[in-house]
Amino acid sequence: MAQFDFQIVAEDPTGARCGVLRTPHGIFETPNFIFCGTRGSIKGLAIEQVREAGAQIILANTYHMHIQPGEETVEALGGLHRMMGWDGPMLTDSGGFQVFSLQYGGVVQEIKSCRGLQGQKSLIRVDEEGALFRSYYDGSLRMLTPEKSIQIQRNLGADIILPLDECTPAHLASAELKKSTERSHRWERRSLEEFLRTDTGIQALYGIVQGGTDESLRRESCAFVCDESFFGQAIGGSLGVSRAQMMEVISMVGEMKHSTKPTHLLGIGGVGDILHGVQCGMDTFDCVHPTRLARHGGALVPLEISNGTEHINLKNAKYTRDSAPIDENCACYACRTASRGYIHHLLKSGELLGGQLLTIHNIFFMTQLMKAIRAAIRGKNLCQLLRNRG
Amino acid sequence: MAQFDFQIVAEDPTGARCGVLRTPHGIFETPNFIFCGTRGSIKGLAIEQVREAGAQIILANTYHMHIQPGEETVEALGGLHRMMGWDGPMLTDSGGFQVFSLQYGGVVQEIKSCRGLQGQKSLIRVDEEGALFRSYYDGSLRMLTPEKSIQIQRNLGADIILPLDECTPAHLASAELKKSTERSHRWERRSLEEFLRTDTGIQALYGIVQGGTDESLRRESCAFVCDESFFGQAIGGSLGVSRAQMMEVISMVGEMKHSTKPTHLLGIGGVGDILHGVQCGMDTFDCVHPTRLARHGGALVPLEISNGTEHINLKNAKYTRDSAPIDENCACYACRTASRGYIHHLLKSGELLGGQLLTIHNIFFMTQLMKAIRAAIRGKNLCQLLRNRG
Repeated sequence: MAQFDFQIVAEDPTGARCGVLRTPHGIFETPNFIFCGTRGSIKGLAIEQVREAGAQIILANTYHMHIQPGEETVEALGGLHRMMGWDGPMLTDSGGFQVFSLQYGGVVQEIKSCRGLQGQKSLIRVDEEGALFRSYYDGSLRMLTPEKSIQIQRNLGADIILPLDECTPAHLASAELKKSTERSHRWERRSLEEFLRTDTGIQALYGIVQGGTDESLRRESCAFVCDESFFGQAIGGSLGVSRAQMMEVISMVGEMKHSTKPTHLLGIGGVGDILHGVQCGMDTFDCVHPTRLARHGGALVPLEISNGTEHINLKNAKYTRDSAPIDENCACYACRTASRGYIHHLLKSGELLGGQLLTIHNIFFMTQLMKAIRAAIRGKNLCQLLRNRG
Repeated sequence: MAQFDFQIVAEDPTGARCGVLRTPHGIFETPNFIFCGTRGSIKGLAIEQVREAGAQIILANTYHMHIQPGEETVEALGGLHRMMGWDGPMLTDSGGFQVFSLQYGGVVQEIKSCRGLQGQKSLIRVDEEGALFRSYYDGSLRMLTPEKSIQIQRNLGADIILPLDECTPAHLASAELKKSTERSHRWERRSLEEFLRTDTGIQALYGIVQGGTDESLRRESCAFVCDESFFGQAIGGSLGVSRAQMMEVISMVGEMKHSTKPTHLLGIGGVGDILHGVQCGMDTFDCVHPTRLARHGGALVPLEISNGTEHINLKNAKYTRDSAPIDENCACYACRTASRGYIHHLLKSGELLGGQLLTIHNIFFMTQLMKAIRAAIRGKNLCQLLRNRG
């Protein structure tokens, strides 16, 4: 039996689908959310807390793990799964996103978690071979090539891995975007060759759909990923400069993409955005949003609690003596044990437990949301769920 | 049945004893260690992690809770127990130690946890009425009197509470020390009067033995605490300027103290120091040491692992690829799930989980140590346990 398998078990008229993806570290259901363990840890949580909050799959960032402690150290510690104590499915990215963010820092939010780099231009050169950059840790020069990215990810040992692609900013001229997309395809093909050369069946490689906001380039890129022997596909590249444009690009790509390969939408994590992505046939999502928001005092809540936004901020003085939980209908550890007032106090006095409780809550919120989405798709009433959100 | 009760269940020829202390929030066994939840949280841990690591009793600091969020807010949130989600025994101090540390910051370590105050002289005036100081939070003037300290601790609601005493530095001239000790006794008596005036049986007040390193003052102070209707006694004040002198003062006070009242040794947390204290009839200990050490990368370990010191520092580069747990004979969550190499990586990359795992380990280590001490006392072989430590 193949170690990897993706079965679509239910479909909805909207285009949404429910699936089960099997990996050597167990299965996860789709649609699902992949929580970010950037440097090999979901910030502030013991791995059993991540599991108890309902996470089925997590990711670590190849760039960060390569820089520190280095993929060989991770391998010596038994690989990412063993090192982190996580026995479930895991994904790593190629490292390219962070390397390119060194140059285009203003465009992306991701880089915020790596303050030392902000404003610096640590990307030295990009050519057909790959990207040359400077390590923020020790200043050494590093070359990230498609082959190197696969080799690093082999050492890290995640179940699902990604090929190196060129990440370009929005607003790229059409000719430039075309060149970049084509280079991405060449890099992805080299990644795939390196992957196949070293394949032992315990990791699966997704292709990445590039092409920015350009319809014909997206179509070309979808065709490329479709034709090559990638196990799944990730939607990458710029999704535009506004939320409306992002929605449009996701809709467009949703219609063009391979219909049965598992599909990951890179870097999207807002509740409304996920609901849109699900309707466009996206199977998985990842974003630092739920966990980062938590560290800044934000709790994801149903719209009726937040008055239409997606979260409340527990740093707000109005919660000082509020003895209610974040959400009285939530069954997470934080809501079962802590009041808004206590979390407010912890945040205001700089106690780490404040962010920890909110991280638990936000992970639980996201896993419950994904569970509700899956149930709605299976029950053919996703529209109802969407209507209830107004 | 009285809500508070202390029974000595075994004694050892050394002077050590085993007891059971009953509070309205359950019992704890003695000798035991009280873990510091300074600002209403054991730094970096969810309260269920504290419980799982074996803690039977914790404390919060009245000074910190008074300043932020304020005892009335704590009361509005249901008191410390409800607010923190801790249903076991709890202790609060009087707040005096931190107030006096504002003046004598160099003498004590405690103040380190409150960086904003270091070097500032925020203690305005001390007179017979109490201590006038400035809040680090909002700059407001606050007066801490014996009555006020009891009132604050009533709002906080811990099981065991302490009276206000004057905390003086070491090296005080004999006449000054005598004056201070006598003032402490007057303050303690006022504390007791306020305690009795407001008593509902759900809190117990310990007296504090003062007197610095002066034998006759310590004797006087023990007699004072013995004669008054304090439920227990805490050993406070300066224990000298060296470890040898501290040992001597503890031995001295151990012989003078009331023999059946539960006895708490304030601020002592080294393993060797605890073993000494236990032999002097001390029943409980508290110190930020195990939890603070953890946040700085230190893991408490048996002497054979640390080559004679009481801990190892996981920040040390030699642990980079060490796939063994901190202590392979330890059954704590950290040792069951994380390698030294992983913890090293977490510490070096600033991930909070590193300190969290070490805090869990150190709490577990201390609770196992106290358990072993209790078993040795009951088995009449404490000497054997001490010999094994060399």
